[in-house]
Amino acid sequence: MKPAQNENALVARIARQLGFARSKTLAVGLGDDAALWTPARGRQTVLTCDWFLEGSHFLRDKHPADAVGWKCLARAVSDIAAMGGEPRFFLLGLALPSSLAGKWLDEFLGGLKRAAKVLGCFAAGGDTTRQANVLITITVIGEVRPGRAILRSGAKPGDLIYVSGILGEADLGLRQLRKQRGVARPSNAALRKHLYPEPRLALGQWLAANRLATAMMDLSDGLSTDLPRLCAASRVGARIEMDSLPASSFLPAAEAREFALHSGDDYELLFTVNAKNAHRLPQRFRGVPLTCIGEITKHRRIFLQDKQKAEPLRSGGWDPFRS
Amino acid sequence: MKPAQNENALVARIARQLGFARSKTLAVGLGDDAALWTPARGRQTVLTCDWFLEGSHFLRDKHPADAVGWKCLARAVSDIAAMGGEPRFFLLGLALPSSLAGKWLDEFLGGLKRAAKVLGCFAAGGDTTRQANVLITITVIGEVRPGRAILRSGAKPGDLIYVSGILGEADLGLRQLRKQRGVARPSNAALRKHLYPEPRLALGQWLAANRLATAMMDLSDGLSTDLPRLCAASRVGARIEMDSLPASSFLPAAEAREFALHSGDDYELLFTVNAKNAHRLPQRFRGVPLTCIGEITKHRRIFLQDKQKAEPLRSGGWDPFRS
Repeated sequence: MKPAQNENALVARIARQLGFARSKTLAVGLGDDAALWTPARGRQTVLTCDWFLEGSHFLRDKHPADAVGWKCLARAVSDIAAMGGEPRFFLLGLALPSSLAGKWLDEFLGGLKRAAKVLGCFAAGGDTTRQANVLITITVIGEVRPGRAILRSGAKPGDLIYVSGILGEADLGLRQLRKQRGVARPSNAALRKHLYPEPRLALGQWLAANRLATAMMDLSDGLSTDLPRLCAASRVGARIEMDSLPASSFLPAAEAREFALHSGDDYELLFTVNAKNAHRLPQRFRGVPLTCIGEITKHRRIFLQDKQKAEPLRSGGWDPFRS
Repeated sequence: MKPAQNENALVARIARQLGFARSKTLAVGLGDDAALWTPARGRQTVLTCDWFLEGSHFLRDKHPADAVGWKCLARAVSDIAAMGGEPRFFLLGLALPSSLAGKWLDEFLGGLKRAAKVLGCFAAGGDTTRQANVLITITVIGEVRPGRAILRSGAKPGDLIYVSGILGEADLGLRQLRKQRGVARPSNAALRKHLYPEPRLALGQWLAANRLATAMMDLSDGLSTDLPRLCAASRVGARIEMDSLPASSFLPAAEAREFALHSGDDYELLFTVNAKNAHRLPQRFRGVPLTCIGEITKHRRIFLQDKQKAEPLRSGGWDPFRS
């Protein structure tokens, strides 16, 4: 198809492809000044917005447009999962050059639409404009029962620290992608994790519904960067057992542990549980391993413990302002 | 002050300056994975997001950072005004180079905070990252009584077409700013309109509360681009009386009419009223003139009428994809 030649045509194309469905709760979607939504009675609204920028978060010549579409929504929805919420719909802010308003756009919208269906989070509106680079921002609106949202600030000394899944494989996938020529194909598990992350919605909702997690966040910038944020919000410290980290089996053990500590982009959940409730956690939740990696401490420092010694944990995760 | 050197410091600085107030309805603002909000019972939620990009929407060397902060929120809130809604809070997506994370950021946040206070729309969260150019995206969340939101799609043949304010002066201000050396100072009325637009919140809410407008939108891209959008949504046409346009007195009449027809960035309201209700509209609403500029017609074309003849209206407003 020919690229969309003006803003009206672009909006019409996006609306057609994403299938902005009006529903009982969503009265007006794309095409008016704003979206109009009737929230469920007695629910709180959860809101998050997330950048996904060419050059910073993806590379146009390496990342398939389909994966860009999937991932921009998946990582924004991961913030809703981290609160224990249910995503409802999203607003798409999209800036792109005219040359990409054809095939690239269609593939991007294809990945985005698939993610919307899988995650139960549908397009409700947005804003488009033209730029030399592709800029994406996604706002997700979700719901949660009052008082059930899990914040970062609830961890208490003595709580056990858990993570879902295996840590570090998405970053391993990114490194493989960087070495490949041309646009990547999701040819192995690590690359698939990098290109098509799966936010832990069901786990987050289960932990919230059962009041099991005292604090929670998603791991987007790496354990060594994100855990200090949870600890700061809760005004506590932590001790992490190096040997307990759920590291990748794709790498030698020492290297895998470094990836597990410092790599971003996993979108697994980091959460704390009162020790007396630990027996209520399964070893796997819908196939995803849940691993106890340490304990919350009173003193506001974070230590990494191996067989010999405990060392302060240095933050080595991703920070766009650290160059 | 020194520029913020990492993402945590940047988020802390934004939170400190904007004063993310927790309130009875906003449980968690910036600093967690998502914002948590309790909507008022029996209200609908209005949602919009809006780009504001260096190079497209503002020039770093011409626009004061304070005006960038004001305007990014004002123009997003204008979409809530255009639905007849009341803004509640906003999410700020901000990408900027490290070199601007000091003085520029503080001035930007100063303008944003003033707009937040004047518009009654407070910061609830957001996302920050680093980029060579300043990228801003604002999501605004508002509320409206069920059934009272004014859509673009409700105009009927015979309805009278109104606009608020004077059209074209913001664009005149932009042209003056482009000619000036260095960062502009809001030294005259046109420049002030360009730098510090005032969304018509009170008017939009009054029209909604009194069920006076059958259709409404805000004028962001110019009358000749935006009126066809309203007409398309309502499946109607329109006849505009050239001599009735509320054009600027700062320009010769013919030139002022061209500006009134084709200039963007005014953020005035365009709305339609059933002719039998026209007597209920004041000539001015809180000092802002309301002007009848024409009539909705059955046939889906838009004509511009002057003393001699009626001509089809060509779209000459701003479209980022038209180059």
